[in-house]
Amino acid sequence: MEPISLARGVPGPECLPLAELADCARAAILSDGETVLSYGPGGGYPLLREWISECHGVEPEQVVLTNGSLQGFQFVAEVLASTGPVLVEAPTYDRPLKILASLGAEVIPVPLDEEVTVGSGAFLYTIPTFQNPTGRTLPLDRRKRLAKLAKEGLLVLEDDPYGLVRFEGKALPTVFELAGGENVVYSSSFSKTIAPGLRVGYMVLPAALAAEVESVAASAYITPALLSQATVYAFLRRGKFAPNLERVCALLRDRRDAMIGALERHLPEAKWIVPEGGYFLWLELPGDLPAAELRPEGVTFVPGTDFFAAAGGESSLRLAFSYEPPAAIEEGVRRFASAVRAAMLLSRAA
Amino acid sequence: MEPISLARGVPGPECLPLAELADCARAAILSDGETVLSYGPGGGYPLLREWISECHGVEPEQVVLTNGSLQGFQFVAEVLASTGPVLVEAPTYDRPLKILASLGAEVIPVPLDEEVTVGSGAFLYTIPTFQNPTGRTLPLDRRKRLAKLAKEGLLVLEDDPYGLVRFEGKALPTVFELAGGENVVYSSSFSKTIAPGLRVGYMVLPAALAAEVESVAASAYITPALLSQATVYAFLRRGKFAPNLERVCALLRDRRDAMIGALERHLPEAKWIVPEGGYFLWLELPGDLPAAELRPEGVTFVPGTDFFAAAGGESSLRLAFSYEPPAAIEEGVRRFASAVRAAMLLSRAA
Repeated sequence: MEPISLARGVPGPECLPLAELADCARAAILSDGETVLSYGPGGGYPLLREWISECHGVEPEQVVLTNGSLQGFQFVAEVLASTGPVLVEAPTYDRPLKILASLGAEVIPVPLDEEVTVGSGAFLYTIPTFQNPTGRTLPLDRRKRLAKLAKEGLLVLEDDPYGLVRFEGKALPTVFELAGGENVVYSSSFSKTIAPGLRVGYMVLPAALAAEVESVAASAYITPALLSQATVYAFLRRGKFAPNLERVCALLRDRRDAMIGALERHLPEAKWIVPEGGYFLWLELPGDLPAAELRPEGVTFVPGTDFFAAAGGESSLRLAFSYEPPAAIEEGVRRFASAVRAAMLLSRAA
Repeated sequence: MEPISLARGVPGPECLPLAELADCARAAILSDGETVLSYGPGGGYPLLREWISECHGVEPEQVVLTNGSLQGFQFVAEVLASTGPVLVEAPTYDRPLKILASLGAEVIPVPLDEEVTVGSGAFLYTIPTFQNPTGRTLPLDRRKRLAKLAKEGLLVLEDDPYGLVRFEGKALPTVFELAGGENVVYSSSFSKTIAPGLRVGYMVLPAALAAEVESVAASAYITPALLSQATVYAFLRRGKFAPNLERVCALLRDRRDAMIGALERHLPEAKWIVPEGGYFLWLELPGDLPAAELRPEGVTFVPGTDFFAAAGGESSLRLAFSYEPPAAIEEGVRRFASAVRAAMLLSRAA
């Protein structure tokens, strides 16, 4: 039985604009090789920093490019984690939780559907749009509340790798926009919109913090990988970003639809909210079944508990629709559903 | 006055194989794009790991590719620095000293021309060939002594980015080779042999430590920048490495010769040892002049004190011959020498 991954938050190979990136990589070196192939600023390839700074209406020095946006999170956490507790959503992306744990940071989980009541700390980490792991989008009033907290002094780190990967509906303003950039770090990446192997992430930071983070970055690796950054820049300059994003969104929309359809057919007893974009769907199992004990044959998923700093998520799990094509998603959900059925029978018999 | 940099440990633009790398980057994506553009192992691009593992006679899992070799140092230091003091050469490369300081590690400096007498600690950090900053090469008996220490239980981190950049003379065996790989981490990079902006460094580690370091790397950035690594692999596979290295060594040899000639002409009172390769030359000033107080016009250098964890190097400095072409090196040394002359007159008058 061919294994099917509903675990990997990874784009399928069909999503990658291979031929175009090959040309962009070549062009990046031919047009600006002396810069691309030498050491450069710790904050990354100057032309891409400028491009991004214009998109966000900030100075180029406020943009720090990193080898993937997770590394940006690590640098910010290194700089700030000792100054107070870090507020995180519960559930949230598991890798930042691991980084915070390895730094010995104090972590305060805030349930996703609750207002943040703590007004101080090192920073608040949020993924407001198509969140990893839940796929949910924070409504406007909650975004405004976060922007207000930022203005009142709590630094907000807004991680937004999925925001542009929208299948339908209208984008809400970012917390960064609502706060006028004040005391908000906006983090994003080209992993979902171009290709993750390039490892091009970025952060837009308040000027003083940007300088500090750039210096931590330079201490860690002198200069990030410029070839990837210059390749992304060539891709943007050639006007390939928008049409590629449209293509990727169409591919992912079909996959999401396949997953929703399969869940409706095979597992209507479970609960989920249909995400309007991103990679993930959060599933609540019927009958409080413990997700970590499910052992479906030929399909993988990530148990909900992985995304909580403390207790929580025992009966939930994350399904990714990004990697497999629609037919495999349908089959994967079918396999998963039979494992759930079997577990339900067992639990009723016990 | 056009400023001349004898400070930067950076190859001049003439050293970079621009056109060839442009083709290699394109070919890397076209031939293996689905791997290169997606997430992959924390230890880096599999085909390059295999290639390097064959060069060093180890298993591919023992090779960890990082975004530049400094990052490898950081990961090893993170894993080991809490287990005991770190022994470093005095002087040594300044960036690792900064990383150790930021980790709060205890550092024991061992003067370059002295035997290591401490037999235990977290690890010993050495750059045995064309050392940064001194350009000196550790003689065979001292290498054997380090290999013996490794076998007796002191982990040796042998950093060797310059070893292949040899202008004349015969290469000595590495500490890694002398110890049969036992308890030695061998670290190198393609920054000096291909191009630094690619940020492709690597480490060859004992198996258990390799697994630990790969896991730390994955926690930090999931996957290193694969496009650069695949580009390096294409460059190697096409047989471009050896001829490019020969070309680079010839360029650098001319620059070293220009520096030595200029020193002989303009500053014969100073002391230096002619390095047989690498990027750097270590200069001891006459009359115990403090290097940090020199302010030569239109030329930069790095004062010796930057390379000592504790006191030392006050009257020494590092000159890099890697970046500027021979005529600029001649002029830079001339400018530098006049500042030294002026300082000597002043100090005699005082």
